[in-house]
Amino acid sequence: MEKIRITNLRKIPTEGGDIFHCLKNSENSFYGFGEAYFSNIKFSKIKAWKRHMRMTCNLIVPYGKVKFIFYDEDSDTKSTFEIGEDNYCRITVLPKIWFGFEGLHHPSSLILNISDIPHSPNEIERKEIDASNFPWSNL
Amino acid sequence: MEKIRITNLRKIPTEGGDIFHCLKNSENSFYGFGEAYFSNIKFSKIKAWKRHMRMTCNLIVPYGKVKFIFYDEDSDTKSTFEIGEDNYCRITVLPKIWFGFEGLHHPSSLILNISDIPHSPNEIERKEIDASNFPWSNL
Repeated sequence: MEKIRITNLRKIPTEGGDIFHCLKNSENSFYGFGEAYFSNIKFSKIKAWKRHMRMTCNLIVPYGKVKFIFYDEDSDTKSTFEIGEDNYCRITVLPKIWFGFEGLHHPSSLILNISDIPHSPNEIERKEIDASNFPWSNL
Repeated sequence: MEKIRITNLRKIPTEGGDIFHCLKNSENSFYGFGEAYFSNIKFSKIKAWKRHMRMTCNLIVPYGKVKFIFYDEDSDTKSTFEIGEDNYCRITVLPKIWFGFEGLHHPSSLILNISDIPHSPNEIERKEIDASNFPWSNL
């Protein structure tokens, strides 16, 4: 699914605690800087469904482990990824992709989103978690 | 100390896990996006001293608790801050300020740096933790 790109990120071993790469302005996945914010997700909680009509997201999980499900309505394609400290990756999500996520780490996990535009409720669409065309439990 | 700016950040209570603000491109503390990266700091470990000659840092602690000490050689001014989940702030550090930090949370804490230029070893100066003019233990 070309609208979703996975990039393995480097962890650099350092005395006292490692350095974790996120994003550089020279990388292909950098679409500009609008805002950075964290979403905390508690263990076994699910936040779904949401899609951004204009925002490109760069998602990184520096603490814990999170399952993401993406659904591209145009191509009827679904994909699932589990990322976190142990599978340390960046997921770049282009606009118009539905997505949801579930916390897999106790007591919680942290998702960093570095987005190309600041948060705006006007460009977000939401559906209930069990929306009939793609219920979470069937994915 | 004008070269160091503290900004209280919002946590937005959300079902399943809160949203934590970091930085928007419209804020005064935004100097451009060069890179974002995490530094992990283990409990009771200290990383000191370092200064950036060109980089402006925006430091946020979304997990754990970290003590920062800053030293401005020009004005001979020191300042100390403890930030983390419970005192959720952003520290903006202009170039040429010496700084070090200590992990106060078990087993570790996470620091996000959103910097205006990408990491480059050429613009970093380092001193030993007990450099004679400002030993960590005396601060």
